[in-house]
Amino acid sequence: MKKAESIMMAAEAFAENYGKEPLFQPRHGKEMPKRAAVIQFIRDLRQIMFPGYFGEDSMRKIDSEHFATYRINHLYDVLKREVETAIWYMEEGKTKEEVEIEAERICSEFFVELPDVQRILLTDVQAGYDGDPAAKSKEEIIFCYPGLLAIYVYRVAHILYEKKVPLIPRIMTEYVHGRTGIDINPGAEIGEYFFIDHGTGIVIGETTKIGKYVKLYQGVTLGALSTRDGQQLSGVKRHPTIEDHVTIYSNSSVLGGETVIGENTIIGGNTFITRSIPANTKVSAKSPELVIKSPKKHAWDWED
Amino acid sequence: MKKAESIMMAAEAFAENYGKEPLFQPRHGKEMPKRAAVIQFIRDLRQIMFPGYFGEDSMRKIDSEHFATYRINHLYDVLKREVETAIWYMEEGKTKEEVEIEAERICSEFFVELPDVQRILLTDVQAGYDGDPAAKSKEEIIFCYPGLLAIYVYRVAHILYEKKVPLIPRIMTEYVHGRTGIDINPGAEIGEYFFIDHGTGIVIGETTKIGKYVKLYQGVTLGALSTRDGQQLSGVKRHPTIEDHVTIYSNSSVLGGETVIGENTIIGGNTFITRSIPANTKVSAKSPELVIKSPKKHAWDWED
Amino acid sequence: MKKAESIMMAAEAFAENYGKEPLFQPRHGKEMPKRAAVIQFIRDLRQIMFPGYFGEDSMRKIDSEHFATYRINHLYDVLKREVETAIWYMEEGKTKEEVEIEAERICSEFFVELPDVQRILLTDVQAGYDGDPAAKSKEEIIFCYPGLLAIYVYRVAHILYEKKVPLIPRIMTEYVHGRTGIDINPGAEIGEYFFIDHGTGIVIGETTKIGKYVKLYQGVTLGALSTRDGQQLSGVKRHPTIEDHVTIYSNSSVLGGETVIGENTIIGGNTFITRSIPANTKVSAKSPELVIKSPKKHAWDWED
Amino acid sequence: MKKAESIMMAAEAFAENYGKEPLFQPRHGKEMPKRAAVIQFIRDLRQIMFPGYFGEDSMRKIDSEHFATYRINHLYDVLKREVETAIWYMEEGKTKEEVEIEAERICSEFFVELPDVQRILLTDVQAGYDGDPAAKSKEEIIFCYPGLLAIYVYRVAHILYEKKVPLIPRIMTEYVHGRTGIDINPGAEIGEYFFIDHGTGIVIGETTKIGKYVKLYQGVTLGALSTRDGQQLSGVKRHPTIEDHVTIYSNSSVLGGETVIGENTIIGGNTFITRSIPANTKVSAKSPELVIKSPKKHAWDWED
Amino acid sequence: MKKAESIMMAAEAFAENYGKEPLFQPRHGKEMPKRAAVIQFIRDLRQIMFPGYFGEDSMRKIDSEHFATYRINHLYDVLKREVETAIWYMEEGKTKEEVEIEAERICSEFFVELPDVQRILLTDVQAGYDGDPAAKSKEEIIFCYPGLLAIYVYRVAHILYEKKVPLIPRIMTEYVHGRTGIDINPGAEIGEYFFIDHGTGIVIGETTKIGKYVKLYQGVTLGALSTRDGQQLSGVKRHPTIEDHVTIYSNSSVLGGETVIGENTIIGGNTFITRSIPANTKVSAKSPELVIKSPKKHAWDWED
Amino acid sequence: MKKAESIMMAAEAFAENYGKEPLFQPRHGKEMPKRAAVIQFIRDLRQIMFPGYFGEDSMRKIDSEHFATYRINHLYDVLKREVETAIWYMEEGKTKEEVEIEAERICSEFFVELPDVQRILLTDVQAGYDGDPAAKSKEEIIFCYPGLLAIYVYRVAHILYEKKVPLIPRIMTEYVHGRTGIDINPGAEIGEYFFIDHGTGIVIGETTKIGKYVKLYQGVTLGALSTRDGQQLSGVKRHPTIEDHVTIYSNSSVLGGETVIGENTIIGGNTFITRSIPANTKVSAKSPELVIKSPKKHAWDWED
Repeated sequence: MKKAESIMMAAEAFAENYGKEPLFQPRHGKEMPKRAAVIQFIRDLRQIMFPGYFGEDSMRKIDSEHFATYRINHLYDVLKREVETAIWYMEEGKTKEEVEIEAERICSEFFVELPDVQRILLTDVQAGYDGDPAAKSKEEIIFCYPGLLAIYVYRVAHILYEKKVPLIPRIMTEYVHGRTGIDINPGAEIGEYFFIDHGTGIVIGETTKIGKYVKLYQGVTLGALSTRDGQQLSGVKRHPTIEDHVTIYSNSSVLGGETVIGENTIIGGNTFITRSIPANTKVSAKSPELVIKSPKKHAWDWED
Repeated sequence: MKKAESIMMAAEAFAENYGKEPLFQPRHGKEMPKRAAVIQFIRDLRQIMFPGYFGEDSMRKIDSEHFATYRINHLYDVLKREVETAIWYMEEGKTKEEVEIEAERICSEFFVELPDVQRILLTDVQAGYDGDPAAKSKEEIIFCYPGLLAIYVYRVAHILYEKKVPLIPRIMTEYVHGRTGIDINPGAEIGEYFFIDHGTGIVIGETTKIGKYVKLYQGVTLGALSTRDGQQLSGVKRHPTIEDHVTIYSNSSVLGGETVIGENTIIGGNTFITRSIPANTKVSAKSPELVIKSPKKHAWDWED
Repeated sequence: MKKAESIMMAAEAFAENYGKEPLFQPRHGKEMPKRAAVIQFIRDLRQIMFPGYFGEDSMRKIDSEHFATYRINHLYDVLKREVETAIWYMEEGKTKEEVEIEAERICSEFFVELPDVQRILLTDVQAGYDGDPAAKSKEEIIFCYPGLLAIYVYRVAHILYEKKVPLIPRIMTEYVHGRTGIDINPGAEIGEYFFIDHGTGIVIGETTKIGKYVKLYQGVTLGALSTRDGQQLSGVKRHPTIEDHVTIYSNSSVLGGETVIGENTIIGGNTFITRSIPANTKVSAKSPELVIKSPKKHAWDWED
Repeated sequence: MKKAESIMMAAEAFAENYGKEPLFQPRHGKEMPKRAAVIQFIRDLRQIMFPGYFGEDSMRKIDSEHFATYRINHLYDVLKREVETAIWYMEEGKTKEEVEIEAERICSEFFVELPDVQRILLTDVQAGYDGDPAAKSKEEIIFCYPGLLAIYVYRVAHILYEKKVPLIPRIMTEYVHGRTGIDINPGAEIGEYFFIDHGTGIVIGETTKIGKYVKLYQGVTLGALSTRDGQQLSGVKRHPTIEDHVTIYSNSSVLGGETVIGENTIIGGNTFITRSIPANTKVSAKSPELVIKSPKKHAWDWED
Repeated sequence: MKKAESIMMAAEAFAENYGKEPLFQPRHGKEMPKRAAVIQFIRDLRQIMFPGYFGEDSMRKIDSEHFATYRINHLYDVLKREVETAIWYMEEGKTKEEVEIEAERICSEFFVELPDVQRILLTDVQAGYDGDPAAKSKEEIIFCYPGLLAIYVYRVAHILYEKKVPLIPRIMTEYVHGRTGIDINPGAEIGEYFFIDHGTGIVIGETTKIGKYVKLYQGVTLGALSTRDGQQLSGVKRHPTIEDHVTIYSNSSVLGGETVIGENTIIGGNTFITRSIPANTKVSAKSPELVIKSPKKHAWDWED
Repeated sequence: MKKAESIMMAAEAFAENYGKEPLFQPRHGKEMPKRAAVIQFIRDLRQIMFPGYFGEDSMRKIDSEHFATYRINHLYDVLKREVETAIWYMEEGKTKEEVEIEAERICSEFFVELPDVQRILLTDVQAGYDGDPAAKSKEEIIFCYPGLLAIYVYRVAHILYEKKVPLIPRIMTEYVHGRTGIDINPGAEIGEYFFIDHGTGIVIGETTKIGKYVKLYQGVTLGALSTRDGQQLSGVKRHPTIEDHVTIYSNSSVLGGETVIGENTIIGGNTFITRSIPANTKVSAKSPELVIKSPKKHAWDWED
């Protein structure tokens, strides 16, 4: 087959697929939000949330309120455009004007709530410094720790989730999921002084509730027991509740919407928990018996 | 030691290393394929596979076949250049002309097969929507879900793997592995309606076979029992077979080339399976006994 | 609330936060190192460490010593600027001149040590080829394997860690952690012929020691038993020792500073080890009993 | 004066200027067209006007009509956005819908007229080749000659000028004026087989009429006699008429709206003409007498 | 000759040239100012000088003083870096600290003077609108006219010239010379309501003085009579004085430091003036007699 | 007319034009040289021709020969690719291998000749410094003067012209013509100590010969008397000869292949010379009589 012939055949088949599939007639020709703009927003927002760490701006030294005003105004415009596009795309039956007013209201509230998020993030930094002997300084945590990056993005996305903005909170958390391997659904509720160490493989489901002073290690799943009812479970609490001062070590799973880990409890590594654990408890999987065999030559040449 | 002296010493030692190591005399001065071009290809291809989601192009509204023709032609040229370079680099004993004809044939076949892949990907989107209560819409799955991104890249890379294109399928899947933490070897065979939730830490080995309506959670390994024979195992089936309608929960491992998970079976989380499981079965690891101790002050100040 | 009002309120609150938080008055107006520059450095350095794989440069064919000299000089300047900034930022009480002399010394030593690292990386490539039947060639390992990428970055960052450069080693390893899901603390000590397969979710703690011919699979944690003493543990050995010729399969954890895995030992998947294992041993978790139930309709419609 | 004080003083004075000057309250907050987009348009349009010279596109080999369709669609969208913005900005009293319909009509007509412009530009290329012994090929003229570039931009801008599009035609011609030193007002009327050699300093005024087979050299002005009445002259013919087969040599000026240079006439260099010249005439300035003096040492050390 | 041999020979000869030429040992290893930064500065500065024309910024609508403050602060930093570098490079015998204080002082004064320049530029815009029937609006002049661009750059550069900043004023005016063909030396003194039409080829020398309401056309030279004394003339007035309300038509030259064109005078096109002209005069070159010959075939086939 | 209809009509007409015009079937599908690459080459080459002025490279301080070697190698590759493409495009009847050998030879010779050009350019810098009282330093001339930029590009392009490389010399000189308004044909022959002041509008024809210590001002044309014979004049000497120590002031034209300006001669401004001038002469146009009239109101309200 020649190039031209192949291209023509493929194009014809694609065109047929496009004609048949409703997902390929995006809603009345409406645009989708721009992923790249949302990601740039969440990256740029760090400059006011952690001033001096991700690009210095001498304006802050002249007048930090002017600095914040200027930056927020720019970020406001970027966010509003995307929020407006997302609502317009996903929510039928609203007029353009209604959508614009709604986006304006959401963004205005969003920025007023941000300084509180900044204060909470400082407690997360403190939690990381207290909890990790490998941390050389608090600056290093802000600057390098993927756990803090994921928490920052989650805390910002959660504001928008609560305001029922479609698509955008998830774009934000999936961006940082891709960057860190930490998947926190923007619907989760997470208290202050939260620390994630290493983090790769962590999953925190949409209806999870987490108290204060909680610490999670890599590979921890806070998940649902079953999703066999699919979309009928939408909105139902199906992920666990973790109370204050709980630590969960690596690769453990805590599952189920009615599962509660009581306060001051430690969950050891590689455990699999599907029912509630009382407060002030230390839980570890009893190590399964080790099977030990004699060796032959060396580790890679060895019979099973 | 001064800068100049240090640089001279280092350069001399590097030059000596270069002279001694055959891997640093790339095959007769041949070029390698360009990673960046391959990655750009797999990103740009999404515009015809999921039209309207990753950049809109008004040409589609004028005439969707013209749209597809134009885009495919461009993608064809990009792919052909890389396929040609990869074959020329890795396969000794072929002439330039033979390599070009082979690349032409492979690319022509590739694009003709793509519309079918598009149809299968739509079943994967449906599987995600049915299987995840947190999904607000099918658009969100196409737009944000790392699982679908990984499956898309795998399905495209698999076509090229089957046509024995060297290097390129692996560049594609390792790209998406880096982006999502999901490592699907392009050699695996995977049926329709496939859903990966969260996904970080999933490994699907080269000789795995997966049926239809299969669902995998984060941290699942479909792996080999042993690789102690190294390159002698190349081509041997060493990864499991998963039949239709199987669900495998998070952090479970299913290992071995003769291991078969029968249809309609559910594998619970954190299990470790090295032998076949019959159809219509529900398997869960019997939870190891929990060891519970009384607390002291709080979770972080506590004696072991 | 209107846009302007919202922005003014937010800016005022941010300015107040800035004024109160010492972390937001970066040390006497000093600059932080540039993450982007450090990441570009570690990416560009690959061109001399694996010549011909990440961008070809015809200068190498004219004279490979000239090639190395030129490139090293450029890399030297980039590194020195960042090392200087990092020391100046983090270490109080040194003069500008002292810091510059120290950066000069560190960089000079660094580049002289690099050719040895290159020789060791070639043994890592060999280990990957011998240990993975899915590897089609050694070129593919250099070109595509995330495990090798992570090891390369670690080996380079480790030199700087040993020279007590602040921040930069960690920026490097967290960069590759984000790219691969493999988190190797730059303080770890790792011998030759080291192979990581798949890799997502691997954590190797700061005080880990690993011998030669060691092989790790995805999800392996070489971690601490407890971090309850936080910063007081800084510098204490709290991660395990892995001797020569050890293989650790996926999702296993080996914890504790006094835990030693003796040479020629194999640790099976999904194990959880908190005490030493003698040499020449094969350890597998005794599989927990499987709980098997009869089926109903199909995998997703099934009662628990 | 300190930095902060200086900035505050300057900002206050600027804010006062902004408040007072109507030109700084752009019309009701309307946006202006994007210069960069207009310039990119005129650059990209060359790819269909001179296919193969400014970036090759393999689609043309598959099907040149598909190629043209695809490119025109893209260019149409770009142009329409700018035309719409320009009309909306400059023309009060029209509704958004009227402006959009007008932009749609203008762009539709524009592209239908373009192929004729392409045919005329080929006559301009021929004129250049016939008229310049330094031209090695017609390809060189298309590829390198600033004169042809200026004529191309003029011919395209002229279509839009005739359709009364505000701002955009002038952005186009001023762009090429900057690039070549050739300033052709988009309102001029210019026939086929037009050749400009060297070109720097040429000025062709808004109401100039130029016939076929005309050739101009650098520094030629086709200008107005006087502009003392300013805006009252707007629309009045105030620049000359040049009939067919006329050549005007370098640095000559032909001025006045009633000045006609008859056909087959040659105007020599450095002349200054303010009244009509009949057809079939050769005009040269009678050289002013030369003043010759005896030398002293050398050219730079010499008394006046 | 082979590539390698040729390169080695050339490099050796270059190295020899480098060693011998003092201009190639830039002053004690000092850096030169960055042309690109200076050019970016003069381009970005337009956003506060002509707000709304070269990129809109919604901050201006929130609070135009905040807008100006923020932008000026950024521009201040950019300018100060370049001014400091330029002084440090060119002026021997000053300490780093002296240079920094001087740069600080210059930049502080510079920005305080700018709002006045903005007011004068508005008179230049008015002059253009009154003087050119082809101008459709004052917006078009700000947006498109190369003359205004050149005047803007000159007026800014002139402030720095007066403060004796080396190199940078000239980088600015040569940038706009390249863009417009208008070469105004930053040392010239030019009054309000200045209009340049078309502009290509205009030269205004360093010691020129120009009054108010002056209008120049393309190709006008305001130059020196002789430069035979070279550097000994540095600082001497060697270019003419043009009083208020003078118009000079295209391609005319006015030369000499003692030449004064009195107020209300008009200088016709293509004149060559080397002595003073009184006020209220209209000067035109008496047209040289035209030489007219009979034609032969057509303009290009004609015997001389 | 609707958008779709208009696009289809236009595309059809373009496709017809493409089919009919030989210039749109570029020679057997051959590629043209890349303008952008040629321009980048001539810009980058400045870094070795004027080291330290256009980007500093610390390698020069380590070892200036290594510096030159490395840079030349890179530039060699870039140039060779374009030279090869240009010859292959323009010269029928040569095999690919012959073309490659020719390009190799040309580039090898080119770089060996460059250091001499560098030495000559230093004399041009000296000429500028001696000849322009406005020049504050020789560095300023290298850094800012458009005249030197044009001479530099000409001198480099001339080497390639002499080696009969098609297209590329002209791309180079037209690039700098666009940047400076100075149009020097690469075929001209120009001696040492050449100075161009201001420069806009200068034209130096293909067969011009210029001696040493020559100085030209803006608007000078060294041109042909007539081009009525078009391509038949190709190769014939049709531009003047300027001997040593000649100065030509602004806007003067010297025309004709047999016209010789003898040494030590000064040509005044605005002259028009079509026959030879002996050595040691000072020539000025006798000023045409001035016509002076009495004024009315002011310069712009005045009757003719």
